[in-house]
Amino acid sequence: MSAIILSIGDELILGQTLDTNSAWISQQLAAVGCPVLAHLTVGDDQAAIERIIGGAIHQCSWLIISGGLGPTVDDLTRQALAAALHQPLELNQAWLDELDRFFKQRNRPMPDANRIQAMIPRTSRMLFNTCGTAAGIDATFGPENGLAVQPCRVFAMPGVPKEMKEMFTRDVLPAIASAGGGAVILSRTLHTFGIGESRIAELLGPLMDRASNPSVGTTVSGGQVSLRINARFPSRALATRHLDQTLADCQKALGHLIFGEDDQTLQQIVLDLLSKSSPNATLATAESCTGGLLGKMITDIPGSSACFHQGWITYSNDAKSQLLGVPEAMLNQHGAVSEPVAQAMAQGARRRADATYALSITGVAGPDGGTPAKPIGMVCISLAHPNGCQSHTFHFAGDREMVRERSAKTALNLLRYHLLNQPLPQ
Amino acid sequence: MSAIILSIGDELILGQTLDTNSAWISQQLAAVGCPVLAHLTVGDDQAAIERIIGGAIHQCSWLIISGGLGPTVDDLTRQALAAALHQPLELNQAWLDELDRFFKQRNRPMPDANRIQAMIPRTSRMLFNTCGTAAGIDATFGPENGLAVQPCRVFAMPGVPKEMKEMFTRDVLPAIASAGGGAVILSRTLHTFGIGESRIAELLGPLMDRASNPSVGTTVSGGQVSLRINARFPSRALATRHLDQTLADCQKALGHLIFGEDDQTLQQIVLDLLSKSSPNATLATAESCTGGLLGKMITDIPGSSACFHQGWITYSNDAKSQLLGVPEAMLNQHGAVSEPVAQAMAQGARRRADATYALSITGVAGPDGGTPAKPIGMVCISLAHPNGCQSHTFHFAGDREMVRERSAKTALNLLRYHLLNQPLPQ
Repeated sequence: MSAIILSIGDELILGQTLDTNSAWISQQLAAVGCPVLAHLTVGDDQAAIERIIGGAIHQCSWLIISGGLGPTVDDLTRQALAAALHQPLELNQAWLDELDRFFKQRNRPMPDANRIQAMIPRTSRMLFNTCGTAAGIDATFGPENGLAVQPCRVFAMPGVPKEMKEMFTRDVLPAIASAGGGAVILSRTLHTFGIGESRIAELLGPLMDRASNPSVGTTVSGGQVSLRINARFPSRALATRHLDQTLADCQKALGHLIFGEDDQTLQQIVLDLLSKSSPNATLATAESCTGGLLGKMITDIPGSSACFHQGWITYSNDAKSQLLGVPEAMLNQHGAVSEPVAQAMAQGARRRADATYALSITGVAGPDGGTPAKPIGMVCISLAHPNGCQSHTFHFAGDREMVRERSAKTALNLLRYHLLNQPLPQ
Repeated sequence: MSAIILSIGDELILGQTLDTNSAWISQQLAAVGCPVLAHLTVGDDQAAIERIIGGAIHQCSWLIISGGLGPTVDDLTRQALAAALHQPLELNQAWLDELDRFFKQRNRPMPDANRIQAMIPRTSRMLFNTCGTAAGIDATFGPENGLAVQPCRVFAMPGVPKEMKEMFTRDVLPAIASAGGGAVILSRTLHTFGIGESRIAELLGPLMDRASNPSVGTTVSGGQVSLRINARFPSRALATRHLDQTLADCQKALGHLIFGEDDQTLQQIVLDLLSKSSPNATLATAESCTGGLLGKMITDIPGSSACFHQGWITYSNDAKSQLLGVPEAMLNQHGAVSEPVAQAMAQGARRRADATYALSITGVAGPDGGTPAKPIGMVCISLAHPNGCQSHTFHFAGDREMVRERSAKTALNLLRYHLLNQPLPQ
């Protein structure tokens, strides 16, 4: 049992867009022990798509296609797939109804062009798309239709990553996983924040040996160092047991540096800790250089309204004074990027929001505005809590976007350590 | 004359590393008018590499390979290429001398493993690597060696992007360009927001005909529909002239639906329009369901402090009343997600910030909180300006993240149309 991944689009073949779908799909297939033979990419050319599908179905048991299902004339995947299947395209009434509903909801007539998105090859199955207008297609080439010696099941999905991932996770991966024999690869991920990759490696020591199974590897993204643990064993039971043991060893080595697992986010974890600390605990925000990013991250979480009611974006000095009561004299004496001002912002936000906790961020995000005394990347972050206020100064590397992201995550991490009643790691 | 790009490596096929080489090589080839038929990727498996090379040489005149030339046992590209050529690997003395020099310079003995990097197939040519130990290989399959009906020249390069790019630019691209009759492909991108891909296609009509040159294709990301215009002509001058003409035709067909080009962002364009409207014009924000995302997007732009001084995140009803003066009676009568409340938020923010403009957003981002009257994706957005206030209700598709992103971008787009003194398109 093996798979080939096919990406379709002129923007890919011209090098204008990077193909991230194939790598993501490969990771998902590895996790269920399905080897990937090849990644293939062709442009929006029906003959080329048909040729490459015709070749691939003889080499693999699963052909995973993304792209070319849009409503425009340069979207030709469904036509090529139908031709390869020697089947006509047929209207799928269920999806046409979905499209009608989609456009009715938006009080817009459905453009004729979208009708094509409800056409799928006869004998194939329609895959629902819960976040777009392109339905997916599930078709089989095999002895029963005289198109291949060994059966090859083809899944065609939209190229938009979000739509593809949603469809793949719901309809494609389970089908492949259930069919899978042989070795099982189970993966888990542990997330840390606020400490470097090399320090993490030191703390993990032999756990990161290349040869070991389960293997432990680190990846870095936005200041977050994640450990990916892969266990490859003949049975799911064995893989699970070894995976759990290695997971426990990593947790023992890193302790509170680990904030969460798999698809948990720092903001999710912090909100969970907050609600556990007290059902009525609330958090307010006061942001300067992050300009709303901290509030955005908190409200990424459905249900955050239970503990987050308000925040202030005080980008100018006047706003810091007028909205949060930061004394102008303090701004003049210490400057906006200083621990006293960060503390006054947090305490002002906590008082005015009548909140249990308040986080404030003021810093130099760049690319301009740096000075020798206050270089780009210098950020002051403060946490006001029922027993007082703690302020810290950080120096973050990277560009404007990176500094802002580190700042918001570091503020959340500050609250996390406070709620865990732990000192911030140095 | 056409090319196929082959990337080799387990880390690619396992999805652990993103293949950036293929996109970069595609861009380089497009610039000299060499069409790319496909991107292919296989793992470090000699049989698989040999098979895919054997297939590709019959389909293209140039096969561009990167990866699998390292010194370790899992680097098998040179062995696979030699087997496909039916030639033995031979020691290349010139490169062995280079390797000796390389290690002497670093006062290190050359590991035996590295000797393999000086082995290339008999009849092939060695390509110098000025920043690594892996030499490249230049080999030809064709009638003269009975390996192909049409000649196919194969360049095998290291996978490390820096080494590959240096070798490709010096030895590969000139060979292809000189053979290419010098056609040039120039590309430009136009960005639209707030209208669907199929509607854009209707408006562009024949401009999107598959056969036309320059060609116009659409891609969608986060509610933004972008047009990629590619012009392929014998000379740069011709390509430029036709590209400019098609660019003008697209602009004529879409008018203000187009907000920017190439790497311009919606927030950048809106801030530019704002500062053009008056050097002292300012913008304030009042956000409910977006929780700070609008402020974050505005402050993505360096120098946004010139026109953006403050914003409010009023996630709860109390916050809307206390911070922005939205009457409680209005909240009770119409509900938080309503045009009257959106208008009161915008007007309150504009007044309290003493700003020229204020944007407000209140909606149902989901996944919970939807009702038949106010379904998930329903968002009210208001713009308060010197001459009054305009409010609109939108119904956005997708999950929480998508609804929030569309909401923030739609608010910016509302201000853009106001500053352009244009009505919002339906």
